[in-house]
Amino acid sequence: MSIRGTLYTVSAPSGAGKTSLVNALLQQCADLTVSISHTTRPMRPGEVNGINYHFVDESEFTAMLEQKAFLEHARVFNNYYGTSRDWVEQTLASGQDVILEIDWQGAKQIRGLVPECVSIFILPPSLEILEQRLTGRGQDDPSVIQHRLAEAQLEMSHYVEADYLVINDEFDIALSELQAIVTSNRLRQENQRQRNANLLRDLLS
Amino acid sequence: MSIRGTLYTVSAPSGAGKTSLVNALLQQCADLTVSISHTTRPMRPGEVNGINYHFVDESEFTAMLEQKAFLEHARVFNNYYGTSRDWVEQTLASGQDVILEIDWQGAKQIRGLVPECVSIFILPPSLEILEQRLTGRGQDDPSVIQHRLAEAQLEMSHYVEADYLVINDEFDIALSELQAIVTSNRLRQENQRQRNANLLRDLLS
Repeated sequence: MSIRGTLYTVSAPSGAGKTSLVNALLQQCADLTVSISHTTRPMRPGEVNGINYHFVDESEFTAMLEQKAFLEHARVFNNYYGTSRDWVEQTLASGQDVILEIDWQGAKQIRGLVPECVSIFILPPSLEILEQRLTGRGQDDPSVIQHRLAEAQLEMSHYVEADYLVINDEFDIALSELQAIVTSNRLRQENQRQRNANLLRDLLS
Repeated sequence: MSIRGTLYTVSAPSGAGKTSLVNALLQQCADLTVSISHTTRPMRPGEVNGINYHFVDESEFTAMLEQKAFLEHARVFNNYYGTSRDWVEQTLASGQDVILEIDWQGAKQIRGLVPECVSIFILPPSLEILEQRLTGRGQDDPSVIQHRLAEAQLEMSHYVEADYLVINDEFDIALSELQAIVTSNRLRQENQRQRNANLLRDLLS
């Protein structure tokens, strides 16, 4: 029997270190993969189409939306983001766990559609460090940084909707905490029961 | 604000390695403690009153039962076992997590009284290994071992009632899995929210 994977949403304000943590988690955990979103936002220096995002223009995005090709979609900073429904469904059906890196709007849509999903919110360890991290990228001017800080606070106000809260103070600790969440979820009785069906039959024979 | 601890029940058939795993977990986890049960069963060689159990006679046990001093109690192999209600309540209120090593009857009573408790079931990796472990103690005759195996299978049939299932194949892996369950529970949003109340107020200010 093939075991269905678990769908995780990971949300965080910009500057909380979400993408670095998720990438490190993928390196350490087998059978765990991240969904690559479609987006209409312009490619940034160093980004690769199909690796960081599937970069599409607004007419392509709208066409996919009309075909109900997205499990969730959201508009952030005047750009659209969406998660391919078929890819998520096929990956979960193959037994892999799937992470969606999405904002609170997307996480809310996912919880409505997939109530058994597990939602994680990552927070920075202080407002000062968040400000430093947002400034540290050095590619935006101060008004953009202020706007991003306000958006970060709006995003953070939705932490109460998540199942788990991870504070990214020390990277390695936050990483081990994410691993513990994935591990413990795999140990849930309903999941273990499917994975160890033969053992359980043998033990109770 | 003091954070209330979490109550864990850990159940397993005799021979699954529950006590060794719980003892190792206590060594590795801060703010985690195990309840010492009251019992009417005779002390075994090497056991110490007040460390392994509070050893009491049947009239003492019955008196405590009448005073409603037990959170749960059970009869196993013609002996009584009970968990002190006051001790558990005070320890949880002090912010420590508490483990109860109890059988399925006790775990069921606890779930009724403390619905937010987290229940863990530990299983051996095969029937052969369970039989070896039950025989390996070398202090009981074959009919006692057969009886214990039948009791083990009765106990194991209740694995479906637990939140988490841990297979004790390799000790270190089973131990790290128990740690992951405790860690992830502390990361639950309701728990983190209390623990990080100041940070959250600061981030959203």
